Amino acid sequence: MSFDRLWADLLPIGRSTDGGGYHRYSWTGADTDARAWFTEAAAARGLDVRTDRNGNLWAWWGAPGPGAVATGSHLDSVPDGGAFDGPLGVVSALAAVDELRARGFVPERPLAVGVFVEEEGARFGVPCLGSRLSTGGIDPDRARSLTDASGVTWAAAMEAAGLDPEGIGPDPGLAESFDVFVELHVEQGRALADTPHAVGVAGSIWPHGRWRMDFTGRADHAGTTRLVDRADPMLPLAHTILAARALAESHDARATVAKAHITPNGTNAIPSLVSAWLDARAADEAALTAVVEGVREAAEKASRDHGVVHTMAAESTTPLVEFSHSLRDRLAATLGERVAEADGPVPILPTGAGHDAGVLSAHVPTAMLYVRNPTGVSHSPHEWADPEDRHAGVRALADVLADLLSTPGGGA
Amino acid sequence: MSFDRLWADLLPIGRSTDGGGYHRYSWTGADTDARAWFTEAAAARGLDVRTDRNGNLWAWWGAPGPGAVATGSHLDSVPDGGAFDGPLGVVSALAAVDELRARGFVPERPLAVGVFVEEEGARFGVPCLGSRLSTGGIDPDRARSLTDASGVTWAAAMEAAGLDPEGIGPDPGLAESFDVFVELHVEQGRALADTPHAVGVAGSIWPHGRWRMDFTGRADHAGTTRLVDRADPMLPLAHTILAARALAESHDARATVAKAHITPNGTNAIPSLVSAWLDARAADEAALTAVVEGVREAAEKASRDHGVVHTMAAESTTPLVEFSHSLRDRLAATLGERVAEADGPVPILPTGAGHDAGVLSAHVPTAMLYVRNPTGVSHSPHEWADPEDRHAGVRALADVLADLLSTPGGGA
Repeated sequence: MSFDRLWADLLPIGRSTDGGGYHRYSWTGADTDARAWFTEAAAARGLDVRTDRNGNLWAWWGAPGPGAVATGSHLDSVPDGGAFDGPLGVVSALAAVDELRARGFVPERPLAVGVFVEEEGARFGVPCLGSRLSTGGIDPDRARSLTDASGVTWAAAMEAAGLDPEGIGPDPGLAESFDVFVELHVEQGRALADTPHAVGVAGSIWPHGRWRMDFTGRADHAGTTRLVDRADPMLPLAHTILAARALAESHDARATVAKAHITPNGTNAIPSLVSAWLDARAADEAALTAVVEGVREAAEKASRDHGVVHTMAAESTTPLVEFSHSLRDRLAATLGERVAEADGPVPILPTGAGHDAGVLSAHVPTAMLYVRNPTGVSHSPHEWADPEDRHAGVRALADVLADLLSTPGGGA
Repeated sequence: MSFDRLWADLLPIGRSTDGGGYHRYSWTGADTDARAWFTEAAAARGLDVRTDRNGNLWAWWGAPGPGAVATGSHLDSVPDGGAFDGPLGVVSALAAVDELRARGFVPERPLAVGVFVEEEGARFGVPCLGSRLSTGGIDPDRARSLTDASGVTWAAAMEAAGLDPEGIGPDPGLAESFDVFVELHVEQGRALADTPHAVGVAGSIWPHGRWRMDFTGRADHAGTTRLVDRADPMLPLAHTILAARALAESHDARATVAKAHITPNGTNAIPSLVSAWLDARAADEAALTAVVEGVREAAEKASRDHGVVHTMAAESTTPLVEFSHSLRDRLAATLGERVAEADGPVPILPTGAGHDAGVLSAHVPTAMLYVRNPTGVSHSPHEWADPEDRHAGVRALADVLADLLSTPGGGA
């Protein structure tokens, strides 16, 4: 299957020689290489590749225009991420084009295969930045001024990569061109792992967000400063980490503090500042609010107790996403044609993970396919899909696209 | 007073333009500049400057040789440190030479003014590395292979600074040459602040050390991984931070977790590894052991509870240092001659901070002078000594050196 060749060509790009994790951040060398890989692979298939105003890539099968079916995903990674989150959807989309052509299929409408920039938000902090920009979900000035850990702005990084940051912003033509968007993604959990199904369909995306918390203490000598004289921000940080976990447990939600910057981060220097990030997700808005406000209260109380000043602000929030039910059911029915009756209906899976598909779903009928991940792990070199499941994903996506592309343009 | 000119010349070197904190790490450009400042200032005074095999600098007044009196401190800083910790002792030593000459004093023995390398251990992790190397307190192979945060070894950094790392190691001539070592240092607490005394004498240095703790978890997606499926090392880290504080309180000790490295440190990526450092100090070895073992137990229990693997190892430990009592009393008597009777005896101060003087005290009769710090803060841009107290420190050091240098060589 052409999937394997495409996959093998992409695999080395941005992979660490130490542990095999991926470091593909927007507008870096690895990102440039991954984009070049896509452009070449699409061109080799005779697809017309265009870069939209926000840097997202679109490879067209058929003339670009209204009534199109769109698919794709992203190529950027979290720090030390896995090979599948994002790339599986992009490679499967190109392989699905090959599969449809091998079947002799002739589309009634154009197909666009897309690569969204900065889906993970790993470099500039705001996830799904490419799709947010295109759908007006973030102010272009704010996006331009987002900075990475070294203080480089999105504008400067984009310009260094040869694109024009002054041109970024809403792209109404995108949503108007697309009648439907389908994103294939590796599953980020084990819901399919114990079923006979290699592929499932997305139900909803939990509401979720990221909050930055600053704990401002007072720099001092760890050896000489009496405990009562300290304003040590590590102490409210510790209370906050534990409070987030306890609140997630009590609300059947997820809350994680996985990132922190400690200033100055010296063994014998009580920090002057600790910045930490809360990632929180829940099945509904009420539960999410309860978790986040609970974390805020715990952080404020612990900070007061230790003479530390605490501030907390949302960096990004995403409301509950319910994908189009009619489209979801249409995909499940298509997939069901390959499934033995004894295996039961194609699973419909809710998820805690955000995706560009979630951002687009407010503007275009949108659906997602999930490919089985036996480890359930993601955002790690241990995320996985077995080779036969990758191929099943390509066939499923080809089936779904064939169905959607067979209807003449004008509504999915 | 010549102090002010020397101080003003040294002050800009390695100072951050953002907040005014110092970043003077061994073998960096700022360190090279600070060493050049010392060499020039000493040469301007006709002192003969020598670099010993470990990179420590020694400026001699009189011919180098046995029976010498030695003084000095260090010029390196913690990250974002203050201006006084280290430099005050070096500048005061040079100014004391000027003061003694202005008094027409003629020494009976040689005086060595020293600058020890890597006192803070800020770059390579082991504090007092220069004095430890010279006194055989660390294996030269281990020292050569110490790495900074970027993986640069001590050997490579020393070589890049133009010195020979193959030559480092014990320097018996150093201890044999010196009959006595006196280090002047800014006080790192407020014991003098509420007294009429600008200068005190060191009593003892608490036993103390640094321990590295690794918490190995499993990388995973913060949004999709069920709480029960996680091995999140941030949770035992949080328990350990709080346990260290509680144990320090109950043992009247100090225990601090002020440094941590989180891998990969992404908002939505449960870390695969958190490394954190414990700094612990107590008035006696039993209390220190109780604190450190208590932290170890708490870290191990919390790690087990969360499926995380915990290891802990000492990076450096320093036993209780009792400075020479006869020398201490001699210094206090000398200082007492300038103190009004109503002000009471010159304070004798224990401290939780390590110093090169503490390392040398096992080999040479050693003493320390502390200069009043009104903020009590140290390892921070807020550490301070008032100008009149700096001058009082120079006069006190000159008085002490005059006393010691007046006795012909052969025992202090």
